[in-house]
Parts: sequence; structure tokens; C-alpha cells
Amino acid sequence: MQQVRVALGDRSYDIQVGGALIKTLGASCRELGLGAQCAVISDDQVAPLYAEAALASLRKAGFKPILHTIPAGEASKCLREVGRSYDVLATHRLERKSFIVALGGGVVGDLAGFVASSYLRGVAFVQVPTTLLAQVDSSVGGKVGVNLKAGKNLVGAFYQPRLVLCDLETFSTLPQREYRAGIAEVIKYGVIYDEALFSTLERKMDKVIKRDRKGLAEVVARCCEIKAEVVGQDETESGLRAILNFGHTIGHAIEAISGYGKFLHGEAISIGQVAAARLSERMLGFSSVETARVRELFVRAGLPVQLALKRASIERLMAATRLDKKVAGGEIRFVLARKIGVVEHGHKVPEALVREVVGSMGAQ
Amino acid sequence: MQQVRVALGDRSYDIQVGGALIKTLGASCRELGLGAQCAVISDDQVAPLYAEAALASLRKAGFKPILHTIPAGEASKCLREVGRSYDVLATHRLERKSFIVALGGGVVGDLAGFVASSYLRGVAFVQVPTTLLAQVDSSVGGKVGVNLKAGKNLVGAFYQPRLVLCDLETFSTLPQREYRAGIAEVIKYGVIYDEALFSTLERKMDKVIKRDRKGLAEVVARCCEIKAEVVGQDETESGLRAILNFGHTIGHAIEAISGYGKFLHGEAISIGQVAAARLSERMLGFSSVETARVRELFVRAGLPVQLALKRASIERLMAATRLDKKVAGGEIRFVLARKIGVVEHGHKVPEALVREVVGSMGAQ
Repeated sequence: MQQVRVALGDRSYDIQVGGALIKTLGASCRELGLGAQCAVISDDQVAPLYAEAALASLRKAGFKPILHTIPAGEASKCLREVGRSYDVLATHRLERKSFIVALGGGVVGDLAGFVASSYLRGVAFVQVPTTLLAQVDSSVGGKVGVNLKAGKNLVGAFYQPRLVLCDLETFSTLPQREYRAGIAEVIKYGVIYDEALFSTLERKMDKVIKRDRKGLAEVVARCCEIKAEVVGQDETESGLRAILNFGHTIGHAIEAISGYGKFLHGEAISIGQVAAARLSERMLGFSSVETARVRELFVRAGLPVQLALKRASIERLMAATRLDKKVAGGEIRFVLARKIGVVEHGHKVPEALVREVVGSMGAQ
Repeated sequence: MQQVRVALGDRSYDIQVGGALIKTLGASCRELGLGAQCAVISDDQVAPLYAEAALASLRKAGFKPILHTIPAGEASKCLREVGRSYDVLATHRLERKSFIVALGGGVVGDLAGFVASSYLRGVAFVQVPTTLLAQVDSSVGGKVGVNLKAGKNLVGAFYQPRLVLCDLETFSTLPQREYRAGIAEVIKYGVIYDEALFSTLERKMDKVIKRDRKGLAEVVARCCEIKAEVVGQDETESGLRAILNFGHTIGHAIEAISGYGKFLHGEAISIGQVAAARLSERMLGFSSVETARVRELFVRAGLPVQLALKRASIERLMAATRLDKKVAGGEIRFVLARKIGVVEHGHKVPEALVREVVGSMGAQ
């Protein structure tokens, strides 16, 4: 088992990465000194696979867990499901020392985390992410929340979990498309922070994509470590943390204009990261050789790197980027790369250049 | 103008108490360096009286305010109105540097504060409380939130405002019953923390109840100061802050079993505080002479101190106390008084004694 400490003062916590960790859930929660009552929040795809193991582990450690299941999918990341979850917790009389376990992917983690942040003004929260994407991204860093009709993640909180258990065995039931989508964030960590990780991925992508457990714990733990380092320096996203959004401004806009669900998040940010690399060439002299390396790694992971858009779609995408949460004073700012492993946030990019790069994504 | 500093490290803020402060709202927000876009959230009773003055002041200072009005009353303190507010903010493209002004009583402040705490994971928040109760209680301390069907304030956050403006002129439009209800919290501060304030109120209650502005600013400011001191020592209610709930365990239960709206909060906690004084006599040797002083002050303020309950209602009230958020490990704990000005929190009281005192509230 690998262990990563997220250092955030009195809100510090551990991320454990390894096999069969769900079986240790109860014992780990016991060590944290949490109250007896707890709720496992999961979705109707993950619960049939792993809920019984999680509940059994909690019961064995003396807890009294209940299970609350939401429909799988992004549509559940909404205020209606938040309200339903609150009602379940209140009905079962969860109190301040009670805690919530998120068992599932990013949707479950974001929703359950927001519920935990606000029920009784905050109860303890444990993450058991069951997708690669959730393990390396959404389970680390404390950003929780839900979508509004007007956009994704417009409501939420910064709320840290007390523990994150990344059980690599859960990948065995993950559809290949979802697993690949998680790789998009793994590659991102190499691009934004760690040339050595990027090189490792170049050497081992064929094994990684086959979920070869050898080395996978190290890769997942390294991604968590990078995110933890970044978040530790900037918990509430006033500065450095923005680098985690490399490729995301365009990626989010792609998700928005194509209707959420057509592209998985990881697919949209694969296209977005290649576009961001091209913006970086024009703005910061990022080398075209490195853009090619970035592009090639996404291709080897089986991820899309191109998107041909008609003129009307380009304009809709431009409008969508302006709705991004990272807009301040009406100006869009981008994370751009100097070289693989080194990026900078807060770059203003002329709108005409964004439009040009977006317009040529079909040939990138 | 009186000014009280709430010392909470990098979340510190000022409370200003005085006349005609709404006119200074814009200039004060300008000093805080907030973004141009903002939303004033108010209700349909307060908005016709004060919204135009607030909006004009903001516009004059260069802000671009929008007004969002909710129906007046406790029923609006719900997730549905939270969702509607989010949608209004998103429609008007409020961004991270935007801010929210709560203009109204406790319902507006609690709702708008929760919206501010969670929209875009938190935007700045300014309180302009327009009732006595809100000025001395809910606008100080950062507890924001809404009700669930299962109970009051079951969802929320600890979220500090950037500024609180207590404009005493708003009392001129406050119904007398609501004003009296606010006095219940004013008296509470004397009982729990400040014998001198209690004595001042004994001397001046006849003037205070007539809203005689002379001395009122000092009384309101002193209440805010006490709450600020308590909150400053215990922001997230792990200990000392519980003393603010003197009289509230039974008070909340009275509100719950009588249907929210029959008793105003201040009325319910008047009865609750006298009951708590009687529990204190039995548990801590609080003197019956002091119970009589406490009771007399509530009577002079025109507040109820008695509630005759039938057997079935007593049992419903007992059940309601067990639902209180302050329950931990299934045990009800009370704030009890040693003498006027000195209370202690966390006292376990035998259920039989609670039942006895609750059963004799009709004759207290």
C-alpha cells in the first residue's frame, strides 16, 4: 500500500492507495474516532458491486451504517439529489459525530461531499473513489459540489475528507472507456508538474492501459501526491491550484456545447489539453515537438485529440468558455505550458487566438 | 455609530451599529474591494421599505446590483428557495468576486448566507439585518443555513460575512410583536454573560421596549460584542458557543410541537429561558430569587413565560428535544445558569427532571 499525506494543517488527511482497501474501511474509520452512525452514499451501478463489502467492513468495526443509493450518472449531481440525501440522513437521525462515506466515482464523491459539508453545517466525510478519474482527481483537494442548469459545479464548498481509500481492485469492474478517460488526468499531472511522470507514462502506457497492477499504485499515488502538493499550497483556488485546470477551460466548453454525456470529462480534456498545448506554442514558445509528444500520449491511451467544429459551434464554444467559473472581470484566463512539467496560470489569451485554435481542433 | 470587531483571524469583520447606515452600504462595500456585480437578497415585506435605498447606495458607489426577493416568512428558509436564488445568480452571471447582500431579518440572512457560502463554492457576503433579533443574533457568528422538513437549521455552513450593518432606523417599521421577540435574545446575553447588561435592562426596559433610540445603539452593540466574543473563542460550536443556546433546547422544541409560526422564536425562547432557569435551580443551585428576576424582565418586555401543556404535548416536546442538533450520543445536554451572567454548557439533565419542569411550565 502507498500512502500520501495531504498537508492542510488541522484538516490534513491521508490517501491510501492499494488493493482490497474496501475491506479495511471500517478499521480505518475506527482509527479516526468517528461516531457510530454513518451513511454510505453510492450509485446504482457501484452499490451492487461494492456496497456490501463496505457495509460489512463498517459493521465489523462497530459502526451502524445505512446505504443511500442515487441513480448513476452526471444528472444525479443536482440539488434535487442533495435534498433527497439530506432527508435520508435526517430520517436516520445522523448527528454531528456521524459521518458519510462516498463510494463511487466523481459524481458520488462530489455530491456526497457537498452533503457532508452542509448537513448539520458539516459532518465528517470519507472518500472511497471507485474510478481512476475519481482516485487521481476529484477525491483529492476538497472541491465538492453539484451542477446547476446554468453550468457545472456552480454550487459547492471546499471541504476536506478525513480519509481517502483508493482501492485499485475496483478498476476490474470499470468499463474500458471510463478507465481511459481517467488516464487523461494522469497524463495531465505529467504535463503540468512532473516531466519524470510524463516519461514514465511514455514508457509504460501500454501496460497502464491494460490496468497492469504492477506500477499502477505508484502512478496513482504520484498523481494524488502532485494534486495534494498543489492543493496544500492553495486550498481555496486563489492561485497555483488553477494549474490543475490545464486543458479544462476548452474541455469544459466542449462538454457544455456537445451536451453533457456525449464526451466523458476525460475525453473532453484530452482534446482541450492538446488545444492548450497549441495555445502554449503561440503564447509561450512551447515547442511543437512537445505538443506532438503530448498528443501522441493521448492517442496511445485511446483518447480523442481532435474535434471538427462548424462555425456556429465555434461561437457556442467561445460563449461557453466565457461562462467558466475561472472568469474574473469578464476576462478568460488560461493555464499554459512552458515545457512538459512546467505550466503557468492566469495567462490572458487574445480571443482571436482562442477562436483560431478552437477552429482548427479538427486538424490538431 | 458604534463599531464592534469580530476577531476571527483572516475572517475578521466589523459590525457597525447606528442610524441611517443603509445609505452608507455602497461606500462600505467599496472599502472592502468587492467586485462590481452583486445581488441584494431580501423578502417581499422588507424590499418595498428598504431595497431602493440599498440599491441606490450600491449604484452610487459604482456597483451593479440586482435585487432578488423571496416571500417573507420561515417557509422560505428552504432548499427550494436556495435553488431559485442560485439560478438568479447564475442567470445574472455573478462571478467569484461578486457579492451578496442580505437585506432583511433572520430568514433572509440565513438563506442568503448559505447561498453565498455555496454559490461558486463561496462568494463574499454582507449582512444588513433589519430586525432586532437579526441584529443581535443571527447576523453575528457565521451560522447560515436552511430548514428541512425534519427540523430547523439542519443544513448550512459556518460562513462569516465581510461586514454587518445594523441600521437602527429599520426598527421604525418593525411590528411591535417582532421587536419584543428580539428583546428575548437581548435579555439572554445578560443572563449568560453580563450581569451589568442585565441590570441595565432592568433599569431601562420601559424605554427599550418603546424603541427609545437613546441607549439602544449601546445595547445592540453590547449584544453583538458578547456574541462576537463567544464566537471568536469557538467559531464552529465545539464548546463555549453552546452557551448562546441558553433556553433554546426547550424553546426550539416548543416551536417544533406548536407548528412553526405560532410562537415567534423570541417568544418560544422566553418560555424556554425561564424553564432553563428552573432547571438551573434544581441542578446548580441557581437562586429562585434570580429566576424571579429573569422571569420579571421577560414579563416587562411583554414576552410569554408560561405554557400549559397536556400530557401528550409534553411527550411530543420531550421527543422534539431529542431531535435537537446539540444531541450527541443520544444524550440531551443543557446550558444551565450558576447566577445571572454566568452559565455553563454541556450539563446532562435527568430526563425525569426535564419532564417535570416542562410539565409545570404552565405555572412557572
